[in-house]
Amino acid sequence: MTEFQELTIARHLTQRLHELSVSEGFGIVGDYVLKFVGTLHEAGMPVLNTTDEQGAGFAADAYARVRGFGMVVCTYGVGGLKLANATANAWSERVPLLVVSGAPGISERENDPMLHHRVKDFDTQLRVFQDLTCAQAVLGNAHAAADEIDRVMACMVSEQRPGYLEVPRDMVTQVIAPPESSLHVHVPPVDEAALRHAVGDVMAHLRDASTAVIHAGAMVERRKLSKALYRLATTSGIPVASSSLARGVFPERHELGLGVYLGALSPEHVVRRVEDADVLLSLGVLQTDLTLGAFTAHIDHERYILATDTDVTVGYSTYRDVPLWAFIPALADALDGESISVGHSPLPTHENFVPSDDACTVSDVVHAIEIHLDERHSLLLDPGEALFSAVDMRVPTYAHASAYYATMGYAVPAALGVGKADPDRRPVVVVGDGAFVMTGLEAAACAYNGVPAIIVVLDNSGYGTQRPIMDGPFNDIPAIAVERLPEAFGTGCGFDVRTRAELDDALHEAVDSDELCILRVHLPKDGRSAALERLGEALRARA
Amino acid sequence: MTEFQELTIARHLTQRLHELSVSEGFGIVGDYVLKFVGTLHEAGMPVLNTTDEQGAGFAADAYARVRGFGMVVCTYGVGGLKLANATANAWSERVPLLVVSGAPGISERENDPMLHHRVKDFDTQLRVFQDLTCAQAVLGNAHAAADEIDRVMACMVSEQRPGYLEVPRDMVTQVIAPPESSLHVHVPPVDEAALRHAVGDVMAHLRDASTAVIHAGAMVERRKLSKALYRLATTSGIPVASSSLARGVFPERHELGLGVYLGALSPEHVVRRVEDADVLLSLGVLQTDLTLGAFTAHIDHERYILATDTDVTVGYSTYRDVPLWAFIPALADALDGESISVGHSPLPTHENFVPSDDACTVSDVVHAIEIHLDERHSLLLDPGEALFSAVDMRVPTYAHASAYYATMGYAVPAALGVGKADPDRRPVVVVGDGAFVMTGLEAAACAYNGVPAIIVVLDNSGYGTQRPIMDGPFNDIPAIAVERLPEAFGTGCGFDVRTRAELDDALHEAVDSDELCILRVHLPKDGRSAALERLGEALRARA
Repeated sequence: MTEFQELTIARHLTQRLHELSVSEGFGIVGDYVLKFVGTLHEAGMPVLNTTDEQGAGFAADAYARVRGFGMVVCTYGVGGLKLANATANAWSERVPLLVVSGAPGISERENDPMLHHRVKDFDTQLRVFQDLTCAQAVLGNAHAAADEIDRVMACMVSEQRPGYLEVPRDMVTQVIAPPESSLHVHVPPVDEAALRHAVGDVMAHLRDASTAVIHAGAMVERRKLSKALYRLATTSGIPVASSSLARGVFPERHELGLGVYLGALSPEHVVRRVEDADVLLSLGVLQTDLTLGAFTAHIDHERYILATDTDVTVGYSTYRDVPLWAFIPALADALDGESISVGHSPLPTHENFVPSDDACTVSDVVHAIEIHLDERHSLLLDPGEALFSAVDMRVPTYAHASAYYATMGYAVPAALGVGKADPDRRPVVVVGDGAFVMTGLEAAACAYNGVPAIIVVLDNSGYGTQRPIMDGPFNDIPAIAVERLPEAFGTGCGFDVRTRAELDDALHEAVDSDELCILRVHLPKDGRSAALERLGEALRARA
Repeated sequence: MTEFQELTIARHLTQRLHELSVSEGFGIVGDYVLKFVGTLHEAGMPVLNTTDEQGAGFAADAYARVRGFGMVVCTYGVGGLKLANATANAWSERVPLLVVSGAPGISERENDPMLHHRVKDFDTQLRVFQDLTCAQAVLGNAHAAADEIDRVMACMVSEQRPGYLEVPRDMVTQVIAPPESSLHVHVPPVDEAALRHAVGDVMAHLRDASTAVIHAGAMVERRKLSKALYRLATTSGIPVASSSLARGVFPERHELGLGVYLGALSPEHVVRRVEDADVLLSLGVLQTDLTLGAFTAHIDHERYILATDTDVTVGYSTYRDVPLWAFIPALADALDGESISVGHSPLPTHENFVPSDDACTVSDVVHAIEIHLDERHSLLLDPGEALFSAVDMRVPTYAHASAYYATMGYAVPAALGVGKADPDRRPVVVVGDGAFVMTGLEAAACAYNGVPAIIVVLDNSGYGTQRPIMDGPFNDIPAIAVERLPEAFGTGCGFDVRTRAELDDALHEAVDSDELCILRVHLPKDGRSAALERLGEALRARA
């Protein structure tokens, strides 16, 4: 964009997105949004195609988890309303996902005509997104449009929640007034005195502790605090377990790495380290049922320090306005000036994966992936067995998942998002067969957009996570030979995997190739990971 | 269900569904809905699996268009919110689609915990569906549950709109109080005096007319008035054009059949018959942009008789409380007692389709399908080229489409719905390549559930309906050899079609076979039907 061009919605939005490190969006056109997408492309903000809007929403969400912000662009009604679920996922998991929808022109709405894609009235979609986002604007006024865009984007970054913009199509070519100021992003405020007291209180607990553990969660990642976390851990020698929403926020293979703590779902040796620690420092962990192992986490309140996006609670005392972004560096500083003695010995390394002619189990997949992956990859774990079984893996890289909202079918389109957001890492997806068929054609969109993902489908003939709770024909799904899909896509390789040796070979080949790879791993219908057995028990006890 | 069983939500709902001719639902389980689906199965109401919730919503919507009522069952949040768009489609096109969602138990909600699949609070999903349905209930009270179900279902049938029920999972096994009464369905009320005057006024116009045409729309189908319409037409000799939302409501190959009137999209000889008629009797036609050819219908108000679900307007006079259900039979009675003389000559038959080695055009597909189909089939037309080009076809059967809301990807899952609703007719889908990739894996769900659909994919390498408006990379999509998908599904046949002869052969073979058939018809990227050219012009002029 040159200085001589007049400002339009697309140009202003593109500039703000560039400021937030966003260099592409995802979405699907339609007549209400077509020209807007055209002007975005001209302004330097390409919108990449997926096969369905749902996939575009998940791709943009995953992009936002890596880059800090993401955008999905859609048409009115038939596009926007397909994104309700992806937006809800972003709300629940604190992701600044911007939904930008085209809409009928303001002038077209006169006399309230029944225009296609309309529902109850022209504001139905806006009202739906009011229930799913932290800020919304319909850009129907050229004087206010730039400021409205800034208001929505600033709120999203401040709150780490999704937002919504609607662009009436007769506004696309209008010259808009420049914004009143630059983008003002607010972070949660800090009370410096409370911060000093909180750090002092925590230090007192740590001085008395012979063991301590950090549990690091999503808000550490969202607030870009992983470097501060690393300093805190390495300065103090306190080991770190991650939340399932923040795998990779601390390197799991570091000697201070404990992998994932997910309540009773975690391996027993992780559970013991976390739950038996004299001090448990919970940093930015969303306190949800799934991320705490269906609320099976047994944590002694007296020994619990809970730092959230806004406050720190030590035992029964809460320090208000002590946000995570201020607390972690301040605690690291305090620990830098004083050595404490918390004991820690690195976790045992896992037993080796031995290729053989034995039929594959879920555990085999976990161990084989653990061996074949390295820091050149990123991992996407779909809800269900893929997510749960991976607690037995220490990943060498980032692993993204819809780990709380738990929307099946997230991982394949999310691979497109992380692949574009972080081109140095090749996405590896682990997904169940039931989830794969929800969004699996987005594998073609990955390849089409230059993201040669490796997709490992755990095929246990249906909804394996449900069978232990109650089984019936509703848990069976049409069997699909997903390894044949690359033939239909005209690109990539498929692998039909039944034994441990075949799994090892296929992963070797996939990691060495630079094409889309789809591995179908046949698993016994009633086989499940130890982690899932434990979750099934917890859910059965409650349902 | 025996008399000795105590009433539960599943048993009462099943009984009401049976009363409304519904014998199966569609949906996908999840832990919040699993046991409820189990009790539905036990009560005699199976829930058939699709690959994604979106497909289940479209299947249930299409089922409702045939049977008069349909149900989709889903889990909370990740299931329900995926159905927002399908529910909006049902709202816009007046379809009584019941969305039944599982939910966290009432007892689980104490202390407002962050349970998985939750968004802002436990009522987020309810609020979203308040914007998309005509009636809603959360079945949290055993005394009121049966009456609440009845209230929602009665409202849906009365208004012909979607409804929403939420079943907290701790309510599934509870014994509920019996309903206060049987299901009271209200239809729009009739003012008998106004009805007599309206019929008299219309008869006066018809007596003076030398030509007259009926335009029959969705509400004729929804109110189950096609027999009354047939009597009205055949008694009077007035020819009938259908709306694109109601193809098949009058047999298009009848000598009084005029095919579809869609404004400037229709063939010129249909436009002339409709727009030049001395009297145009519009019966239950939704007055929308798309169903009136992007508002290109040129209809003289003076000669226009508009009968809606509630009123009749003759020229500039409106008769209130003269609903369609009373008006059509009353007008047929009046015409039965008096002969009027409206001229009509049957439309010319189409030129024959001649197989050859010429490359296929869209028109070829339309003509070939017209020849190969008969009353043993039903037709599903996806929005875009499939829907528009089919105005040049007179279908021998029903044709269903999202013809106003125009949600792409509707037709493949809709085939499952109509296939189950009307097992005597085999569904034939016509769908663009861009729409197919949105929901195409539901073809596997069709086969899995015993519906061997014929799916004709119009492959013009992207979003062909958009290219005339504005072209760019956003109109290109990953190419998929859809004819290879049956290999991945392990069932059915695929056909790669380039010439008219190959098209003819493939349709022959598909119609003779009893398996899923997928035809990929290669079309020129810039080729489009005359109908779409005209729509493109109309949209370009406006956008």
